Amino acid sequence: MGSEGTASVDIGSINPKVYKCEYAVRGESETYPQILEQQLQANPGSLPFDEVIFCSIGNPQALGQQPITFFREVLALCDHPSLLEKSETRNLFSSDSVARAQKILSYFPGKGTGAYSHSQGVKGLRHAIAAGIEARDGFPASADDIFLTDGATPGVHCMMQLLIRSEKDGILCPIPQYPLYSASITLHGGTLVPYYLDEATGWGLEISELKKQLEDTRSKGLSVRALVVINPGNPTGQVLTEDNQRQIVEFCKKEGLVLLADEVYQENIYVDDKKFNSFKKIVRSIGYGEEDFLLVSYHSISKGYYGECGKRGGYMEVIGFSSSIREQIYKIASVNLCSNISGQILSSLIMNTPKRGDASYESFTAERDGILNSLARRAKAMEDAFNNLEGVTCNKAEGSMFLFPQIRLPKKAIGAAKAAKKEPDVFYTLHLLESTGIVVVPGSGFGQMPGTYHFRCSILPQENKIPAIISRLAAFHESFMNQYRD
Amino acid sequence: MGSEGTASVDIGSINPKVYKCEYAVRGESETYPQILEQQLQANPGSLPFDEVIFCSIGNPQALGQQPITFFREVLALCDHPSLLEKSETRNLFSSDSVARAQKILSYFPGKGTGAYSHSQGVKGLRHAIAAGIEARDGFPASADDIFLTDGATPGVHCMMQLLIRSEKDGILCPIPQYPLYSASITLHGGTLVPYYLDEATGWGLEISELKKQLEDTRSKGLSVRALVVINPGNPTGQVLTEDNQRQIVEFCKKEGLVLLADEVYQENIYVDDKKFNSFKKIVRSIGYGEEDFLLVSYHSISKGYYGECGKRGGYMEVIGFSSSIREQIYKIASVNLCSNISGQILSSLIMNTPKRGDASYESFTAERDGILNSLARRAKAMEDAFNNLEGVTCNKAEGSMFLFPQIRLPKKAIGAAKAAKKEPDVFYTLHLLESTGIVVVPGSGFGQMPGTYHFRCSILPQENKIPAIISRLAAFHESFMNQYRD
Repeated sequence: MGSEGTASVDIGSINPKVYKCEYAVRGESETYPQILEQQLQANPGSLPFDEVIFCSIGNPQALGQQPITFFREVLALCDHPSLLEKSETRNLFSSDSVARAQKILSYFPGKGTGAYSHSQGVKGLRHAIAAGIEARDGFPASADDIFLTDGATPGVHCMMQLLIRSEKDGILCPIPQYPLYSASITLHGGTLVPYYLDEATGWGLEISELKKQLEDTRSKGLSVRALVVINPGNPTGQVLTEDNQRQIVEFCKKEGLVLLADEVYQENIYVDDKKFNSFKKIVRSIGYGEEDFLLVSYHSISKGYYGECGKRGGYMEVIGFSSSIREQIYKIASVNLCSNISGQILSSLIMNTPKRGDASYESFTAERDGILNSLARRAKAMEDAFNNLEGVTCNKAEGSMFLFPQIRLPKKAIGAAKAAKKEPDVFYTLHLLESTGIVVVPGSGFGQMPGTYHFRCSILPQENKIPAIISRLAAFHESFMNQYRD
Repeated sequence: MGSEGTASVDIGSINPKVYKCEYAVRGESETYPQILEQQLQANPGSLPFDEVIFCSIGNPQALGQQPITFFREVLALCDHPSLLEKSETRNLFSSDSVARAQKILSYFPGKGTGAYSHSQGVKGLRHAIAAGIEARDGFPASADDIFLTDGATPGVHCMMQLLIRSEKDGILCPIPQYPLYSASITLHGGTLVPYYLDEATGWGLEISELKKQLEDTRSKGLSVRALVVINPGNPTGQVLTEDNQRQIVEFCKKEGLVLLADEVYQENIYVDDKKFNSFKKIVRSIGYGEEDFLLVSYHSISKGYYGECGKRGGYMEVIGFSSSIREQIYKIASVNLCSNISGQILSSLIMNTPKRGDASYESFTAERDGILNSLARRAKAMEDAFNNLEGVTCNKAEGSMFLFPQIRLPKKAIGAAKAAKKEPDVFYTLHLLESTGIVVVPGSGFGQMPGTYHFRCSILPQENKIPAIISRLAAFHESFMNQYRD
């Protein structure tokens, strides 16, 4: 068949913004390792390694991290409320899981977790989240400011969609950055205005750099609408100091920028001398009130010690916008009806964990601290390992789930990469994968200072695998350098 | 505080596509009834009715419909797999729920339903869905063609984002239409090209009308990219005949259009002389093969007899696109990482229900048929009731969850509406709400022939409430007509 012309949809006839969009942490960086993994399963021994290890993405439960029992108990009970009427349930679930599930179900008319909720999310869950934010910050939070989302991603798209009118609208983003920001800005037709983090000062965020980039951009006739800050940093792992955060807030205030604060790693801090401060707390502690400052803070159930990536939950706290703009944000949310209820429930749980005296408190605390302490040890072990490699330097992972080491590649390696028509960092990480099965993401996917080469490596493989990963990495690096040393 | 200028984000400085976007089934049509509901709770007896009844949206579990037990058992076990190791579980869950949960968990490395999946969805679940499609259609289906989504909505956005380059790109949409289509086309900057369904022939879809609108649009220099067909219809409730579907397929083939088939109500058919045929089956039965025809079929867990709106699951089956375009579709999916796993699991369940011989088979069948038979009775009762009202005619709800009666409003009512600065159908539905607590959506939100007035009314209130709803509606209508009759 196919007599007349089949509908013509080709690369030349699709939305060029889609074509231009790049997303380094998925696509080829994911599919090629998957092919190798399938090859290993079909034909064990056919590759120089036994296992593909995904250090490429922040996906803890894919690498064996177990979910937090309390969270899953509550979720199962909310999924199947008739369990609450059975006597056997008392033996299977902790008493505070049962109580929490009953409380959550009371927010739903008829206990119906299968209904669309309010497009901002179930009101009772938003109240619970606001209470969690208040407890964290020591400043009031309102359920009306919370928009529950399927992970942080849709919230980022929402604000980009709202703020970007054309390529004349710029969004200040850190470089290196998490590629959701570049992808979302491209898809919505805006311009990414880069500001470079200073690797020499532990990925420092300098106000002078923000000013310089802002002024350069404005001098080209662009309008800069917002500043993206990722704290703790992804892919860079730094944690901002309170002083630095105050400077950032004052900069946004002075320059009339919306502050988009990616705070999804707020639970992931691994060093004693740093602590997480939300930008909401900073804004309020300076004294800016409800109408003085425009802030959107993103949080997610995918990170922290819980790592519930597959459940797709999160929220944005939207501060300072006029009621007419909030209506527009609500409209964008409402076109997607609502975020999934399991993700909404989990979002309320991560902001309201078991309290001292609750039946689950000890086991919950042990699970949480076990994961966070192990992550801290893994971060340190991998940082040390990278710093022991020839020509490699690696800043501390103060927080988040990633290290972003710099590799000083020999000219010969850069030449070989060019001959193979690859970026030098891609060339290196591809060789690493094919020699060791270790998957990392080349720095070019996040942005890096021209002439420097990095990769992003997660600290998420289970702790007992870290020594083997480090030794394979070291052996590969030595052999790579032996091959290409100038 | 607030010394310098706070960031200026006002209606004049946001993306005008967002401002222009309208979404009739949420927003004011939802918030005003909610305010009345709160008023009733705070002050019972303060309004001329005891209860606000939401006939405005397709949200069955919000109106008391119970979830299907088998689905929720499997979901709870997948959320908390350690239940599978406990002896008590055998008393709480059916044996086929346990077996199904074990099978589904085997698709996840380490049973980890908390990990991000492949951006198209978990491969094992996509295989299960493809098998369900094959069983439904009698033609092969491939897991590679399935993209799991958080409800049908993100899949619709995805294709609009792909196909629309500018306002010069048109999408043919039925009028009346489900406002997701108009909203999505506006947000992505395209042009909605209307084709009118013929109310006189039961909301018939005439090829001559498609041709006329296509030619008109092309003569204005626009490029028409795709045809949206909603079958069973929303808000109109009609079910297309196989002959009509063949004509539609041939029309798309001849004119080079992508067919976007909204088939989310495929389980909701209430008349003996109609049956659901997927467009995939029609395309294949004509003889068009893999590369001959571009089709996207949407399905959702929110509709059918399951009504799992809050779980946000669904899929699109993407047929006939070149590998380079599929990569672009995959990229759009991957920027959102993946859809939520509970929704993915439910999507696989609705396409693979218990079989004869399974422990749940009888109870599952009874739950399913109980809901569908009741919906058929409710549809008929409400259709009859509307047709008994002065000046109202209502086509049969052959399928979906809605009726879309036409009200011939007296000139005096139209004049009163104009004086109140309301659309006449909005004027009517607002009076209906304020007199009876019954919430319906004015036809203007879906589009209607100029000079005609309709509203969309769901058939979802529980069956024992239907007689009271009908009598309140009839009493209101009579008094409205008495007040405004010419």
